[in-house]
Amino acid sequence: MRLFISREEHLRRTVQARTEGARRDLDALVLFSPTQVFYLTGFAFIATERPIALVVTANTTALFVPRLEEEHAMAHAVVDQVVTYPEYPTETHPMHRFTELLIGLGLAQRRLGADSDGYPGVMGYRGPRLSEILPRASVRLVRDLIENMIVIKSEEELALIRESVRWGNLAHARLQEYTRPGAIESEVGLRASLEATSAMIAALGPDYRPLSWTSPGARAGYRGQVGKQSAIAHAMTTNARIQAGDVLVTGASAAVGGYGSELERTMIVGTPTDEQRRYFALMLEAQQTAFDAIRPGRPCADVDRAVRAFFEENDLMPHWRHHVGHAMGMGIHEAPFLDIGDTTEMRPGMVLTVEPGIYVPGFAGFRHSDTVVVTQTGMEMLTYYPRDLERLTIPA
Amino acid sequence: MRLFISREEHLRRTVQARTEGARRDLDALVLFSPTQVFYLTGFAFIATERPIALVVTANTTALFVPRLEEEHAMAHAVVDQVVTYPEYPTETHPMHRFTELLIGLGLAQRRLGADSDGYPGVMGYRGPRLSEILPRASVRLVRDLIENMIVIKSEEELALIRESVRWGNLAHARLQEYTRPGAIESEVGLRASLEATSAMIAALGPDYRPLSWTSPGARAGYRGQVGKQSAIAHAMTTNARIQAGDVLVTGASAAVGGYGSELERTMIVGTPTDEQRRYFALMLEAQQTAFDAIRPGRPCADVDRAVRAFFEENDLMPHWRHHVGHAMGMGIHEAPFLDIGDTTEMRPGMVLTVEPGIYVPGFAGFRHSDTVVVTQTGMEMLTYYPRDLERLTIPA
Repeated sequence: MRLFISREEHLRRTVQARTEGARRDLDALVLFSPTQVFYLTGFAFIATERPIALVVTANTTALFVPRLEEEHAMAHAVVDQVVTYPEYPTETHPMHRFTELLIGLGLAQRRLGADSDGYPGVMGYRGPRLSEILPRASVRLVRDLIENMIVIKSEEELALIRESVRWGNLAHARLQEYTRPGAIESEVGLRASLEATSAMIAALGPDYRPLSWTSPGARAGYRGQVGKQSAIAHAMTTNARIQAGDVLVTGASAAVGGYGSELERTMIVGTPTDEQRRYFALMLEAQQTAFDAIRPGRPCADVDRAVRAFFEENDLMPHWRHHVGHAMGMGIHEAPFLDIGDTTEMRPGMVLTVEPGIYVPGFAGFRHSDTVVVTQTGMEMLTYYPRDLERLTIPA
Repeated sequence: MRLFISREEHLRRTVQARTEGARRDLDALVLFSPTQVFYLTGFAFIATERPIALVVTANTTALFVPRLEEEHAMAHAVVDQVVTYPEYPTETHPMHRFTELLIGLGLAQRRLGADSDGYPGVMGYRGPRLSEILPRASVRLVRDLIENMIVIKSEEELALIRESVRWGNLAHARLQEYTRPGAIESEVGLRASLEATSAMIAALGPDYRPLSWTSPGARAGYRGQVGKQSAIAHAMTTNARIQAGDVLVTGASAAVGGYGSELERTMIVGTPTDEQRRYFALMLEAQQTAFDAIRPGRPCADVDRAVRAFFEENDLMPHWRHHVGHAMGMGIHEAPFLDIGDTTEMRPGMVLTVEPGIYVPGFAGFRHSDTVVVTQTGMEMLTYYPRDLERLTIPA
C-alpha cells in the first residue's frame, strides 16, 4: 500500500525541476517555500523563524537547515547534502551562512531562479533578500516553475489523496453520527477526529505517516458554520450548541504522507423546511453544473462562468460569495482556481475542489465540497460521501 | 471575566499605530499580515489566496476584504469602513481594486508604511507589489512598527494568556493521566484535547471564543517526541506507541480570544535510569539558569549566553540544538528571541517561552517550556505545571 512518495519519485521531480530550470536559462534553483522544499525532498518540517532553503544546481542538491533540524533532515530529505547553520538570528545571520553555501556551489555570479527573493517573514523572521546577499548573481522569481509541476498529480500522489479521502469519509461519518440537538460542535468534531484517527492508525499500520504539523490523522468538524452562522463561509468556531432547525456546514480531511483531500457537506437538523429544501436543491444543482463543466483543455474560468450563469438564472447572485473551487494536494488551497479570472487550462491529473456555495445572511449557508481529479475525458469524483438531503438530515 | 480584547483597546492600538506612523513621517499604514490586522481590528480570519489588508490613515481606518468575508468583517472588525472586492483572481485583480481604495483615500502620492510590499504569496496567490500599484507613492517597509507594539502585552492581553495557561494545564494533566505503556501518542493527545476543550467550553460559558482557525479550545500532545524520537526537537508525529523506558516531550496550549500560551514537559515512562535522571536534572538547571537571567533592561541575548555558558561548563554543547526561547502571544513564535544574536532589551510586559533543550541523538531529548512575563524586577512564571521528575514520571 502506498503511504508516502517514493525516493524514486523525489529524484524524478528533481530531474524535472533541473530540466525546466535549464530550459529557462537558469544555472540553479533556490527554493524557500516549505511546500516546494517538501515536494522536491520529502522533508516535512515546521516552518519557523529559522530559514530553510533548497538549492538545486546542475549536479547537486543542498538543503540548508538550522542545527535543530540536522538529524531530522538527514533521516528524511532526499538530497545530496544537508548543510546546517547554528540558529536564528545568532551572531552571524543565517543568510550570510547561506551566502557562503551558494558561493561554495559556484553560484556567486550565476543565474538563479527563486520562488521568493529570500526567506518569507514568518514568526518574526527578518533578513536580507537573496538578491542582496548575492549582488553579482541574477535572481529571477520563478515560483511557477515548481507550482506548474505540483498542479499535475502523479499516480503516487493520487494514491495518497485517495487514501486521505477514505479516512476523511470515516471522520465525516462519525461526525454525522454524533451530531444531535444539544451537542456542542467542537466536541462532536474532536470525538469524530479521535475515533477516525484511531481507526486509521490501526488500519494502515506502522508505515503510516501523516507528515502534517497540525493533524496526526483524520479530522472532521464544523468550524463555526452552525445555524445562522452557516451563512458565514469562513466562520471561526464559537463552540455553538447544535439545535433542531439548524443548517450545518461540515469539513473533513485526513493527512497521508503530506497530502490531503477536502470533503464538506451541508446537513440539516430535523425535518428540513421548504426554504431549506429549496436552497439545498439549488446548491446541488450548482455543484452539478460545475462538475459538468470540468473537461481537460478548457480554461478553469469556464467552470466558474457556468456556475455564475446558473446563479444569475436563479436570482442567486445576492447569495454568491466565492468562486467554485481551487486546486489542492499538499496545500489546502493551491493554484489554479476555478475562478472566472483564471485562464489556466484544465489538464488530466489536476486535483480540484468543487464547492459553489449559497449564503443567505441571517438564515443559512449551503455548500458541499468534493475533491475531483481531471481525467482524459472529464473528471472523476474522489470523495464519495452521500450528497442528497435525505441522507444528510440529522434526526431531531 | 476577560475573554476577548475590548473595543476600547483596539481603538487605543489604532491611535498608537497612527501616532507612531506620524512620528516616522508616514501619511498612512498599509498592513497585510493577518496577525497585524487582527491586532488592530480584532478581526480573526482564515488567510487564503484572497488578499486582506488594513489601511490606517490620519482620520480613518479601512479594511479591505473579499466579498466572502464581508458580513464576517462587518460583525467583528473594529474599523471605520469595510471595503470589499469580489474574489481572487477574477477579471480585475484585487490589488487593482485596492489601488482604487488607496487613491480614494488620497494616498496616491503619499508616504506609506507597509508591513510587506504587497500581499504575501500564500495558497497560490500572485499579485503586484504595493510599490507597483502606487508608483507615485513612497512605500517604506515598517513591519517593526506594529511588532514593537505587539511585543509588550497589555493587561487585557495578559489576562487572555493567563486564561490560556489554565486550560493548557488541564489538557496537559489529562495527557499525563492517559499516557501509559501501549497507548498511541496521538490518541492520548486527541482524548486529552477533547476533554479539556469540553471542560473549557462549559467553564467559560457562551462568551468564550477561541478565535483560532486550528483549535477550538485546549490541546495537548506529543507531536512525535516519543522515545528515541524525543531527541528530534521538531519531530513530526509517527503515531508511535508509548513504551516503558521512553522519554516523552509534550506540548500544550489553549486558544482564548486569539491568544495562546506554551507549556512543554519532559516525562519518563517507568523508573528513570541514571542517565535519564542526569540529563533531566541538567535540563532543569539550564532552565533555571535562563529564569535567573531574565531581567528588564538586559538584552535578550544575555539569557541565551548564560544558558550556553551552562552547556559549555557541563560539556553539553554536543547536545545543544536551539536558542532558549521566543516571544509569543497571538503567534506561537513572535520576535524577539532569547538568542545570543538578539540584542532587543527585555522590558516589562514581554511574554516569553523559556525552553532550553538537551538532545542526545539515538537516546532522548529533554526540554521543558514555560511561558513567563517580564516584570519590573525580573519575571513571573505564568505556566505552573509541575517541573520535577517525580511528578513527571509515568507509572509503567
